[in-house]
Amino acid sequence: MRTSAQNAELALLLEVAGTPKPGNVDRERDLADLRFEHFLAGAVGARDGLERAASGATIGSAFERAVEGMATQEGGNTQFGALLLLVPLVRAAGDDLDRSAAEAVVRETTVADAAGFYRAFDHVDVAVDDPPAELDALDVRRGSDAVPALEERGLTLLEIMEQSVPGDGVAREWIEGFERSFAAAERLAAAEGPLSERTAAVFLSLLAERPDTLVATRHGEATARDVTDRAAELVAEDALATDRRAVDRFADDLADRGINPGTTADITAAGLFVALERGSIAV
Amino acid sequence: MRTSAQNAELALLLEVAGTPKPGNVDRERDLADLRFEHFLAGAVGARDGLERAASGATIGSAFERAVEGMATQEGGNTQFGALLLLVPLVRAAGDDLDRSAAEAVVRETTVADAAGFYRAFDHVDVAVDDPPAELDALDVRRGSDAVPALEERGLTLLEIMEQSVPGDGVAREWIEGFERSFAAAERLAAAEGPLSERTAAVFLSLLAERPDTLVATRHGEATARDVTDRAAELVAEDALATDRRAVDRFADDLADRGINPGTTADITAAGLFVALERGSIAV
Repeated sequence: MRTSAQNAELALLLEVAGTPKPGNVDRERDLADLRFEHFLAGAVGARDGLERAASGATIGSAFERAVEGMATQEGGNTQFGALLLLVPLVRAAGDDLDRSAAEAVVRETTVADAAGFYRAFDHVDVAVDDPPAELDALDVRRGSDAVPALEERGLTLLEIMEQSVPGDGVAREWIEGFERSFAAAERLAAAEGPLSERTAAVFLSLLAERPDTLVATRHGEATARDVTDRAAELVAEDALATDRRAVDRFADDLADRGINPGTTADITAAGLFVALERGSIAV
Repeated sequence: MRTSAQNAELALLLEVAGTPKPGNVDRERDLADLRFEHFLAGAVGARDGLERAASGATIGSAFERAVEGMATQEGGNTQFGALLLLVPLVRAAGDDLDRSAAEAVVRETTVADAAGFYRAFDHVDVAVDDPPAELDALDVRRGSDAVPALEERGLTLLEIMEQSVPGDGVAREWIEGFERSFAAAERLAAAEGPLSERTAAVFLSLLAERPDTLVATRHGEATARDVTDRAAELVAEDALATDRRAVDRFADDLADRGINPGTTADITAAGLFVALERGSIAV
């Protein structure tokens, strides 16, 4: 019987092992400067923070510790968004991990948790959009330098997340009761075959539903919509089962263009955790 | 900066990710009942025992805990032998992890450590040869049932390992000052390319040097020698660089015949740990 922190680390590992995950590092693909081994080391490094989340540390401090540990590898940001989902989910995990338990955790976050979230940005570069001018003092890229402005305005971590929706698919999970994370868990349980294939299928289904935040941030909304439309075509054709080469071509195309649907991977990792924790998938 | 326990867990992950590793599960190959995900979960599960080894628990109890955690997955024995190398190496790790530090750790093992080693066999089935008749009472497959006989004879864990040489390539490391583990670390540092390729090259070089214990146990010594001879031909031809398809054919052939050089993988994992700990490879 694994602990919740162990399941969360394993979810990070299973996520990166799922293949094919078009545009992202997976069991069969490295990118130029971001390789499989960086994700392995990121998951190992995150464990201490995940254990803190399980054992009652504040969400902000557990998240900062998880990110600091994750960043102890040379690939840069591998799993920041995934940890922003996993830390509250680990805290919510118990006899019955469900959406209301996860909602209760994020609802109880404080200004101190928001400060921990900002401090996490000191440890790693994260690709985010510019904030609106009136929120410039709260630009997350300021890291701990933004904490005084944050405390002055008295914003909790949940309120920070509310300001980031709709532009951020991870923040949206915080606001919408982890809707897509739990949906991903149900799809993982319903899918068939080895877990790496189920993970790939659920990743593609998530990508087909909603433009990926990281793609939109880096390449614009039109590109993000195009990627989602193409994923939706592949899902409609059941291409993973019937035309794997079409999926591989899509994967090659995204990799060639440097398009990495990272937010979709984050939600896939959260879904893997929920499914492991509920025992609806097993390893 | 990773802790020694983190480096040991990462070494287990990097080992299984190395590809091609003929006959074994690797980043590109699953076996019928033993898949990549089982090794990921085995590494996650082993961490607690590795942390105990680092923080001063007895070698026997740390090893038993590591094996118990490793076995919390559905694939069976994934990393027993690797942990039997990693636990003393983690204990020996400090400012200067070297062979004499590792030798000192195994020299100081006690009868209680041997009892912990036997108890570890209660958690998982391990492929081992039949012992000589006079040692039947000490057959490791008896697990904790053999502990009274062990205590009566007053054998330390090092003495148990001495009885297992030359038939056991992991025990041989205990007796020979972790000679091949440290040699593997030096080769990993000297090799070039992504870590998964270096790992594959070092695995093949180890396999080429000495017949694999697990192959000999399961398939006989002649088969183990044949495998080593073929590996040596491929190393002599520098086939990983010049004729990758020959290595892939060798890998397919071993997988088809159910030949898994598991002991060679164990030593590869130990080498990865030593190299990570010394900073001669980085992730």
